[in-house]
Amino acid sequence: MTIGVLGTGMVGIAIATKLVERGHKVVLGARSTSNPKAVEWASSVGPKGIAGSFRDAASLGEVIFNCIHGAGVLDSLHLVSAEALGAKLLIDVSNPLDFSQGMPPSLLHKGDHSLAEAIQEAFPYVKVVKALNTITAGVMVEPGHIPGDHDLFICGNDSDAKAQVSNHLQNWFGWKSIIDLGSLIAARGMEAYVLFWVQVMLAKGNPNFNIKVVS
Amino acid sequence: MTIGVLGTGMVGIAIATKLVERGHKVVLGARSTSNPKAVEWASSVGPKGIAGSFRDAASLGEVIFNCIHGAGVLDSLHLVSAEALGAKLLIDVSNPLDFSQGMPPSLLHKGDHSLAEAIQEAFPYVKVVKALNTITAGVMVEPGHIPGDHDLFICGNDSDAKAQVSNHLQNWFGWKSIIDLGSLIAARGMEAYVLFWVQVMLAKGNPNFNIKVVS
Repeated sequence: MTIGVLGTGMVGIAIATKLVERGHKVVLGARSTSNPKAVEWASSVGPKGIAGSFRDAASLGEVIFNCIHGAGVLDSLHLVSAEALGAKLLIDVSNPLDFSQGMPPSLLHKGDHSLAEAIQEAFPYVKVVKALNTITAGVMVEPGHIPGDHDLFICGNDSDAKAQVSNHLQNWFGWKSIIDLGSLIAARGMEAYVLFWVQVMLAKGNPNFNIKVVS
Repeated sequence: MTIGVLGTGMVGIAIATKLVERGHKVVLGARSTSNPKAVEWASSVGPKGIAGSFRDAASLGEVIFNCIHGAGVLDSLHLVSAEALGAKLLIDVSNPLDFSQGMPPSLLHKGDHSLAEAIQEAFPYVKVVKALNTITAGVMVEPGHIPGDHDLFICGNDSDAKAQVSNHLQNWFGWKSIIDLGSLIAARGMEAYVLFWVQVMLAKGNPNFNIKVVS
């Protein structure tokens, strides 16, 4: 499969690299086609990794990962255009974090909205599924780094899309326990969770953890 | 010990009832001394349960639980006065939730502050420890309702106060695994977490769950 990954931060690079390792062709999209991180990445992973624009990644990818930093998501996606995104699966990994006051970050809103919903409203035909935003990049693509049972959360308005994403996350990254939180409104909770994640990370001193829902 | 519980919602009633069962004298404080829920509660639990004003609960309690609904916390505590609170332990269970748009609630802020910090700033001598706000009332006072290991989170600026609270939560309610997230700023994460909790609760259909941090 050809997969588009938008964003060249730690998350985009981790996802793009793991997908190439799994045998997929990956277009890593940046604002500029000469983005040094994307170009360096493509040259390091061999012929299956391609550096391109956001629009290249969205047009060529059959599935799209949105790994753009939260504050820039909507502006960047508008560079892509609705045509390029079509009615594809978009796995939204972004978090609406405001680092303008340093650590800890705050949210860009009061939890009365979410980036995932904003993307869905801006691109009504895209099948947006929120996933992977609740763990660090290394755990996203290798959940076995954390021993024992722990959970991934997803949500979205299209059940078929969520089933496909669950399969992909299982096959590509090895996720075993995926909890469907319902429609995309649940992204408000998944995104607000990240403020809690930051505090656990600061207290533990490292980001290599996840949670398990116990009942 | 005499314990003051501020707030007559499900959380205040659950905590007050359990503390009476444990043999403590409990003053359940409300805005008015004739609050029907407090009066009914006091008559149902026997002589160790007393209905009073917020000020009564704060003055008579050696330890105070703040279970006032988030939007009303600061106004209500100002009815109490700094004198009545003194330099006591205040266990802050409140959540900054805005239900004005119905379910799901949003936060009263962007996670750039917390109720626990606001209380600490308003009453600098009080030893504020945030705890118990991340689970439903029944689990707060009976963690064994959820089988297996799961975690409670606390934070606060005073280490001795946190140690005392940890002991109390263990002895009074049976909490075994208590994770100290550091200074009171971590309450921003603990309070934002509740938006995630709400989504898990809606997806599961009941509030009888908690999380375990896995690493």
